[in-house]
Formats: sequence, C-alpha cells, structure tokens
Amino acid sequence: MAKRNLYLDIKSVDEAAELYLSALKKTLDIQYETIPVVESLERVTRKATYAKYCSPLFNASAMDGIAVISSRTDEANETNPVILKEEEDYLVVDTGDPIHPPYDAVIMAEDITEVEEGVKIFASAAPWQHVRPIGEDIVAGEMILPSNHKIRPIDVGVLLSAGIIDIEVVKKPEVAIFPTGTEIIEPTETPADGSIIESNSRMFENMVTRAGGIAHRFPPIIDDYEQIRNHVAEAVGRYDMVIINAGSSAGTEDYTVHVLRELGEVLVHGVAIKPGKPVILAMVKGKPVVGLPGYPVSAYIGFENFVDPVLAEMCQTPVRKNPVVQAHVSKRLVSSLKHKEYVRVKVGKVGDKMVAAPLARGAGAAMSLVRADGFCVIEQNSEGVEAGEAVQVQLYREPEEVENTVVVIGSHDLILDVMADMMPESHKGMFVSSTHVGSMGGLMALKRGEAHLAPIHLLDETSGEYNIAYIKKLFGEGKISLIKGVGRTQGILVKKGNPLGIKGIEDLKDCRYVNRQRGAGTRVLFDYKLKQLGIEPSSINGYDREATTHMAVAAAVGSDGADAGMGILSAAKAMDLDFVPIGPEEYDFAIPEQYLNLPHIQAFLEILKSDEFHRRLDELGGYTYEKAGEIVAI
Amino acid sequence: MAKRNLYLDIKSVDEAAELYLSALKKTLDIQYETIPVVESLERVTRKATYAKYCSPLFNASAMDGIAVISSRTDEANETNPVILKEEEDYLVVDTGDPIHPPYDAVIMAEDITEVEEGVKIFASAAPWQHVRPIGEDIVAGEMILPSNHKIRPIDVGVLLSAGIIDIEVVKKPEVAIFPTGTEIIEPTETPADGSIIESNSRMFENMVTRAGGIAHRFPPIIDDYEQIRNHVAEAVGRYDMVIINAGSSAGTEDYTVHVLRELGEVLVHGVAIKPGKPVILAMVKGKPVVGLPGYPVSAYIGFENFVDPVLAEMCQTPVRKNPVVQAHVSKRLVSSLKHKEYVRVKVGKVGDKMVAAPLARGAGAAMSLVRADGFCVIEQNSEGVEAGEAVQVQLYREPEEVENTVVVIGSHDLILDVMADMMPESHKGMFVSSTHVGSMGGLMALKRGEAHLAPIHLLDETSGEYNIAYIKKLFGEGKISLIKGVGRTQGILVKKGNPLGIKGIEDLKDCRYVNRQRGAGTRVLFDYKLKQLGIEPSSINGYDREATTHMAVAAAVGSDGADAGMGILSAAKAMDLDFVPIGPEEYDFAIPEQYLNLPHIQAFLEILKSDEFHRRLDELGGYTYEKAGEIVAI
Repeated sequence: MAKRNLYLDIKSVDEAAELYLSALKKTLDIQYETIPVVESLERVTRKATYAKYCSPLFNASAMDGIAVISSRTDEANETNPVILKEEEDYLVVDTGDPIHPPYDAVIMAEDITEVEEGVKIFASAAPWQHVRPIGEDIVAGEMILPSNHKIRPIDVGVLLSAGIIDIEVVKKPEVAIFPTGTEIIEPTETPADGSIIESNSRMFENMVTRAGGIAHRFPPIIDDYEQIRNHVAEAVGRYDMVIINAGSSAGTEDYTVHVLRELGEVLVHGVAIKPGKPVILAMVKGKPVVGLPGYPVSAYIGFENFVDPVLAEMCQTPVRKNPVVQAHVSKRLVSSLKHKEYVRVKVGKVGDKMVAAPLARGAGAAMSLVRADGFCVIEQNSEGVEAGEAVQVQLYREPEEVENTVVVIGSHDLILDVMADMMPESHKGMFVSSTHVGSMGGLMALKRGEAHLAPIHLLDETSGEYNIAYIKKLFGEGKISLIKGVGRTQGILVKKGNPLGIKGIEDLKDCRYVNRQRGAGTRVLFDYKLKQLGIEPSSINGYDREATTHMAVAAAVGSDGADAGMGILSAAKAMDLDFVPIGPEEYDFAIPEQYLNLPHIQAFLEILKSDEFHRRLDELGGYTYEKAGEIVAI
Repeated sequence: MAKRNLYLDIKSVDEAAELYLSALKKTLDIQYETIPVVESLERVTRKATYAKYCSPLFNASAMDGIAVISSRTDEANETNPVILKEEEDYLVVDTGDPIHPPYDAVIMAEDITEVEEGVKIFASAAPWQHVRPIGEDIVAGEMILPSNHKIRPIDVGVLLSAGIIDIEVVKKPEVAIFPTGTEIIEPTETPADGSIIESNSRMFENMVTRAGGIAHRFPPIIDDYEQIRNHVAEAVGRYDMVIINAGSSAGTEDYTVHVLRELGEVLVHGVAIKPGKPVILAMVKGKPVVGLPGYPVSAYIGFENFVDPVLAEMCQTPVRKNPVVQAHVSKRLVSSLKHKEYVRVKVGKVGDKMVAAPLARGAGAAMSLVRADGFCVIEQNSEGVEAGEAVQVQLYREPEEVENTVVVIGSHDLILDVMADMMPESHKGMFVSSTHVGSMGGLMALKRGEAHLAPIHLLDETSGEYNIAYIKKLFGEGKISLIKGVGRTQGILVKKGNPLGIKGIEDLKDCRYVNRQRGAGTRVLFDYKLKQLGIEPSSINGYDREATTHMAVAAAVGSDGADAGMGILSAAKAMDLDFVPIGPEEYDFAIPEQYLNLPHIQAFLEILKSDEFHRRLDELGGYTYEKAGEIVAI
C-alpha cells in the first residue's frame, strides 16, 4: 500500500487559529484602493475622512416664508403691525433657499398677511430665527467617518454632501480556489461510476464573497504532484490567498501537504476538530494557503474556523458571528476529549424550553447542514453532554424565527417537508422543523418536553388499532391528544420491474433486505407481519441492516445495494421504484394538550386541512386525508 | 405666493404602511428567473427544490482499506486468521471509492496484515461495515430546499451535489430613482450660491442594493411638471418601482404629488412620522411610486418605513430588522401626539445600565444619523419620555459593541473624534462614543450614571483653577477622579485676515458675535472674561445666538454669518480662519472612581499617553499633552 500522510502534531482549534493568524500578521500587507464613494457600500475605510464642504453650504431658510432684516421688524406687534416692502425689506423664500446679508431671519408664510405695498407682520423677528445655519449638519474640516469603518448607505450620502467623491478603502482580497481529485467531475458533466460531483469549491466561492473577498475558482486539478505544485506556485504570485480542496486527508493520493512543504511552510496539519480534522494551514511566499478536507461538512467547518478569520483580517472587518442561544439537547451526545466537536442541531422552543435536537453527525452529511438551525459546540475538554443538559448553540437563523417554529420529532414522512415548505408561505414568520427518530423516539421526546408534535404510526398488535393504544400506554389519558394526519400505504419497495417477483413479506427470505431502525413504526409493522406469518427475523438476510428514513431504504434498493425494503409509496415514487402494497396505516401527530392553542400549532392544523396541502399529497401519491387536522382527545 | 400642497389626510405610520402594502399586493406580480446555482447566493427560491441525484452517487468506502465479500470473512478470528486474495476476495480502496457487488463491506487498512498471497484478516466483516450507503446524504427525489428560501453558500454546494445546475429564483426588483429640484447639483460639480449637493439618491441606490434590488439612478430633474411627469410615466413602464426624491414637501416647487395624482392614485400624502412627514405613497399603472422628502434624515426614515417593506415583498424576504435593546434616555424627550418620532441616539453601557443619549433631532442632521448607534422610537400615542425612562432602541451596531464602548458625555473637542478613530484600531472591539452637551451637562450625566467620562474645561472664577473646584462642588471628595487630558488655547475665531482688527474680548462690542450654549466651558470662560472686563453681556450683539460646538462657531464665522465667536485653535484651523488667542485652558475628563479599572477605560488611558495620539494632536495644532492620561484623585 502507498505511503500515507500522518498528522504528526494535531493542534487544538484555538491554538491552530492563533498560530496561523499571528504568522499571517507578520507578512500581511493590507492592500488599499481608491474608489468612487457611490460604489463604496460595505467597503472599509482606510483613514479617517474629513468634510471638504459644509452642509448646508450656506445659511438657508428653514421655512417657506420671507427673509427679513431682523432689525427692521423690532417695532412690530399685534396692535402695531409693520409693513415690509419686497426686495427692500424682504425676499420670498422657500425652505432651503439661501439667506444672505443683510437678511438675517425668516418669518413663516403663516405669520404674514399680503397687502398692496408688500406684507404686514404682527411680531418682530429675532435675529437668525428660522435660519438653518451653514454647517449645521456638517462643518468643513470635521471628521465624518473614522478609519476602519464599514460604509453604510447613509455614509455614502453624507460623504457626497461633504464634497467627498472618492474614498480610499481596503482592497477586496482575491482568493484562488483549487478543487483537486481525479475522481471529481463538474456538476454539468454526467456522472460515471465512482464520480464525485465537485461542489465544495462553489460553496467556498460563495463563502469568500460573503466574507467580502473576490473568489477565483479554477477547474479541478487531477491528483498529480507536479500539477498541484505548479498551480499553487503560480497562484501565490497572483492572489492574496489560496484554498486547495480535498487532498488534505491521509489517503493515498493526497499530495497537498507535500506540495506545501516543498513550496513554503506548513504551520498546522491536522486540527482537533470534528468534523474537519484534516486541515492544512500553510504560508507560501507570505501568502496564506489553506488545505480543506473533502467532506462537505468538514470543508464548511474548516472554512468558518480558519479561512473566515484570515479574510476578516485582510478585509479589516470583524469575523462574522452567529447569534448564540442556550438550549437543551434532546439526546445524549458523546464526544471525545481529542477534539472540539460541531454537532448540527435543529432548534425550537417548546413551552419555556429552548430545545436542540441533534442531526446526523457524519462529515459527509451536507444535507444535515442545510437542514440545521445551528451548531452545538462541544469543547475539546468535554466528553459530551447528557440529554437535557443546557448547551450553547450558534444559530444560523434569527432567534425570533426559532420562537415561532413547530418542533416535530418522530417518524419520518415526506409530507413533513411539504408542510415545512408551506408554513412560511401561508403563515408568515412561522416555521416547521422536523427531526426523524422514529415513532417511539418521538413519543419519548414529547415525554421529555422537547417537541410540540410527535408524528407516529404505531400499530397495536392486540387491537390492530393505530397510535391511540401506544399513547395511552405511555401517557395515560387526558394529557395527550392526537391530531389526525394522513392515511398512507406501507409496502415493499423493489427495483423497477420487480425482477425477483416479490409478492409479499413471505418472499423476502431469499433476497437482500434493508430494514428500518428500532423504534420506527415501519419496523414495528414489519415485526408484526413477520410474527403473523411465523417468520423468524434471523432468517431475513439484512434484518440487522438499518436505514433511518423511507428515502434511505429507497436509495439502497434503487442502487442495487439491496433487493427490498419496507416503506411508503411516495418514497418508491420519488426513486422510481416498484411498490408491493402490504396495507394501509395511519400517520398521525401526538400532541400534549397545552400546545393545541399555540398560534403556530393552529397554523399547522390549517395547513393539514387546506386544499393546497391535499393537492400536494395527491402529487406525492398514496395518501388519504379525509380526517387530516381532526383532533382526537385521548 | 404660489399655490401650496396640503396634507389633507395625515396617516399614522402603521396605517399608511398597511394601506400601501395591501394596495401593492393586489397588483404585484412577482417576477422569477432561472439562473445558474453557482450565482444564486442570497437569492430566494421560487419553489421547493428536489434532488436529481443521490449523494453519494454510489455505495462508497468510508475508510482507506480493502473492500471484501463479507460472507468470505465469516470464519476469521484472532486465533484463526483468514487469508484473502486480491482481485478475487478483495480490492484495495481509498475513502470514497465505489463498492460494487459482490463486495459489500470494508476492512480498515489498520486491521489487515500484508502477506505474500494477499492479506491476512483477524476478524470477520459484518455486511455493509464501513460502507457509506448511496444517498446517505441526499436521496434523489428528496426535498433539498423549500420554496421562499434565501440561498446560502452551503445550499449552493448541496444543490450542485444533487445535480441541480440551474434554479428558479425571485427576480431582483428594478428601482428607478429620480432626484428632483432645480437647485440640486451633482457631487462632482462645483457648488454655486444656493446649490444643494444631491446625495440622497446615492443613499437610496445603496439602500436598494442592500434590500436586494437593482437601482437605476437618473440625473436630477429640474422642478418642471412636464419633465417630472414624462420621466415617471416612462419609468413605470420599464421598472418595478419608482422613487422620486424631494418635491414631496409643501413648497412652491413641489409637483410630485400633482404628477402622481394625474398619472395614478396617491394613497398616502403625509405620514405622522418625524422626521419624514412629507411622504407620498402612490400606485401608477400597478407599480409603486414613492415620493420621499428632501431632508436626508427624513429621506432615510421614509425609505426604511415605506420602501424597504415594498422591496421585501417584491424580493419575498423578511423586512430587514435592527436588533432592539432597552436603554435609559439621558435626557427628557418631548414629542407630539401628532407623530411617531425617531430620535437618533448614542448608546452605551454604563455600570449595569444601558444608556441612550439623544443626538440632534433636526431632519437635516444627516451627520447625527452617521454618528448614531440607533433610533429611540417614541410612539405616536406618547408625549415623550422623561430623563432616565427606559425606551426601546433599534440598534445599528452589534449589541456587544455597545458593551465595550466608552461613553463620553460633555464638552466638545475635536480630539474626541481622533480618540474614537484610534480606539478600535489599537484595541480591537472597543469603541469611544461621545455626545456633546457642554462641560456642565457632562458632569450632570456623570451624576445620573449615564456616562463613564465627562470631558470638561471649567474655570473656577475665584481660584482661577480648572475643573477640580467644580467637581468638588458637585460631588464632594473621594468619588470622582480627574483624568488629565490636553492643554488647549481658547481664543476668538475671526475671518481670514481679521478684517475688523479684533484684538481681544473688548473689541467684540461692535461686531456680530456667535456665542456657545449655556453650560459650555467656553461660555463660562467668555462670561468670566466679560465680568473681568466689566462688559455687560447684553451689549454683545449675538450674545443670545447659540452654537453647540466649536465647529459650528467656526462655520458661522467662516460663512460671514457672524464676525467673531470664541473657540479653540483646532476649529479655526479646520475652517481656515484666523485666531486671536485669549489664553490656555485645561480640557480634562472627570470619571467616577469605579470605572477606572474597566478594560475600555484603561484602553482610553493608553491612547491618551500614546505617541500616535500626540502626533495627531500636533497635526490638529494648538494642543499640549504633557500630563495626558495622568490620574488626579479628588
């Protein structure tokens, strides 16, 4: 087997970041450029800027009326009005008109009476009354903006008012991005066997833009030492920073670290962070060069921790920060003392409690990052957190959005995505967030006060009744209601054309099966059917192979990783599989009574009953919805 | 006098906004466009997006090692290792390599021993161990993004991974911006008498950009009914929204409202908001046309209240919101029941108390908007708030920045701007915020616990001593310390060349004087000098004319609005005036003892002592700084 890289000296996140930033600061030569003020939004000023002109540029009338010489009005009062002559004693002025000597005051239009000779006034005018003095707003020579200031729209206005046309700002750092790997293809290409669609570099491109830089993304480089070296060597001469993607783990084809050792200095190789360990932080000819891991979540976390601070330094802006809230984790999270771990979570407020429900922890689970509301960070010195423990969560959403989110934990169905999609459209500012832990897991979450709703489809073996029996068993009566959801058909997902001719559960013994996880309603149903038919679970090849969603089962079957798996019709349709129906079942929502009147729960009920929702169910296929939204007290 | 517009029916802010938005929604036809995913950052999705491909695209090795057929490893254990042959029993795989039938499991490189015939294994492999299943991350057919979702960098990555190359998003609304007014000039032109530099449209341009639209700013249109009408009539055909600036107050040259009545429907003319009352909200051929006032602060507030919501509706994004904090106002704010008022404030944390110090309230004071940390909003049903009362403040800064800000309230000097400029540069994340209310006002603010520092220069008439006597009088001993600031020279600011030949206070009787406000140290000094010389204040022409800063005095003199005023040398230099010195004085900082050890106060002291600060004082001119940063206990 080929030579492998070793992480000789894994550093903690803080240590690595500090080491790298201080090395950067030694050589960093911040670049500036002079640009038109009108194009300077969100750019950062180099120096304090001083007004060239006053604003207003002259003494100006603050009212519509007449400009007068105040001393000629001294005698006027109610009983002894004074008559003023136009051009001699007064001038008609509008708001903003200049007032020049000898005029030194303004009388409002409302306070004068027009007469033949001119106007009559009934009160004297104090010197400078209703005159907006020159420089009232800005005085020439005054500091308008400090150095290191991020320009806002109002600043643009004031700079121009003060006669400043151009302004010196920090130049946007230009970042070269090199995806590497022989197996990667562009998204526009048709994937072959073993192809990986290159998408990280496009994510980086947009992260660079968001951080205030300019991204230059290059086409993928194959795993070839010379090619990688030549590209990097050229790029450090032309750009302010270089990012190399993948090629940073300890696989056989990973040349990045060797290239960077040859060209410059590798300060950090391997960081105690999960996901994201195989980060390389190097300096080449005074330019920062960062090697980021190939797994998308590792790549994202590596960028936020090590590239964002570099770009912030170059842009002279503070590092972008997410709002932080305290939340209680809905399940135990074991973590190693070896690393700081970023666990993606869904966050919601249930009762008075902010709850964080962990999502998939794998480095490859990019979707979990899309679905996440934030990260729960487990520090390196911690072995993890217990269920219910309070943790800090870095939020990706606005805290107030979290307050108006229906927290759904339980069994998975595609309709939850549809409802999450419909909610903010039909009920502005409200959201649905779902985490999938199976029906039993959902009821447990209700018990711990971590969810508003638990979607369940649990068949009671003795009564043949759905859901109600389980709720009674777990909660007794009078506490939990059942919101009727949809009827759906469970069945066996098989490849298109059903090549093995599977007609029912009894035909599963001779095929490669993929099962659902313990606690899933579909697993309960499967076990019930096996028992009915007198089939031993151990006789099913793949009984122990667990997938956690209907879609994961569909994917396994669709890819020939399995021959059959149990699931719902909509999942079969989504993956273009054939479907052998086993029977109908009821997919409902268990809800503690006290949540029924919450406005976002009411909104949830409205959606369940809406024509639009029913239309979308018909599109998905295999659903009935006669009772959707009805409430059954238990 | 010409015909004037009348605000026939002034509406409350909420009423006006609601009326306008519901009219808009009736005709609004949201536009969509399909764009490449790689360019879709921060765009808003039209529809829910479903994955085209699975990710990973195939069953993949999750480890570096060998892919095996699990059934052939069943016999292996520590005492009975099994030998596997390459190409027959196993294939060497790296992380990410595809696993195809008959291979169905991976053994890690660490767990095998290379032998001549192949490899030796010491444990059986469970089916699918270390195999990352197809679709583990994304399953084809699964919803990736909901509708109405603002695309983030991670979304770009996931969309591409799932085979989505193009995406349908909300089209950016295109907004035409027309500055109007015969007196306005472009910032690049040289101002003539009565010229107003047009800058609002540039501010709007950037506000449109910030809200997600595309701005089309047109050159100024003169005050001519036909011209304005023709431009607006053409623009509503080509753009999604039109903004007309100025021409919306009740001045003589204000055609906007008449034009809009002719072309379409004026829904609102005049809103009970201050500043910002003369807003016009109209619909012309189904397009929103908004007339915004000419004063920059009115224009800004009008935009935030009435244009931002329209753009948010068109972009299908939530309206931009500022973080809100509760703070105590440092002085009484009287407001009218007639309007909702936006008072600009500086915000800081003093002790445990969040304090909001009101800035200039004039609609023309754009600089106060630049200097503000936020707005304190006084609702229409309120007559104002008492000093010390808690109010809601909409912040323009991060709440944590406010926590690390030195709050300075008191006498004005240009060095405060310099210190505010230097602070964040030398001490990252720390800020200096100053409000100018005169020396006495500053000491009062300390007394009420609303400032960390009060810059003062108060001459005790009996002892001739600066500052200490006043502090003792007001606070007694042992509570307040004095941080020595700078020595500076007070004098009389006169026009270049001193045309009236003013040599001292005694020459001021025959000229137009501009005074400082009551409580200002410079006023105290002036009164002291008048008394010494036996001059009656009433004999000074302009004694009652008050300017609130040195720079405002300089501007009045520089513009021939006054012949003389008392102030400091640096102000004279900034405005290129002559300066008749009266005498040196001490400008120091009073500080309650308990604040001395705060980190940001320590930073403030460091700056006072720094060479860089002294260099900048030399640049300003007229300062001494031997004792700067020394602490005098009182």
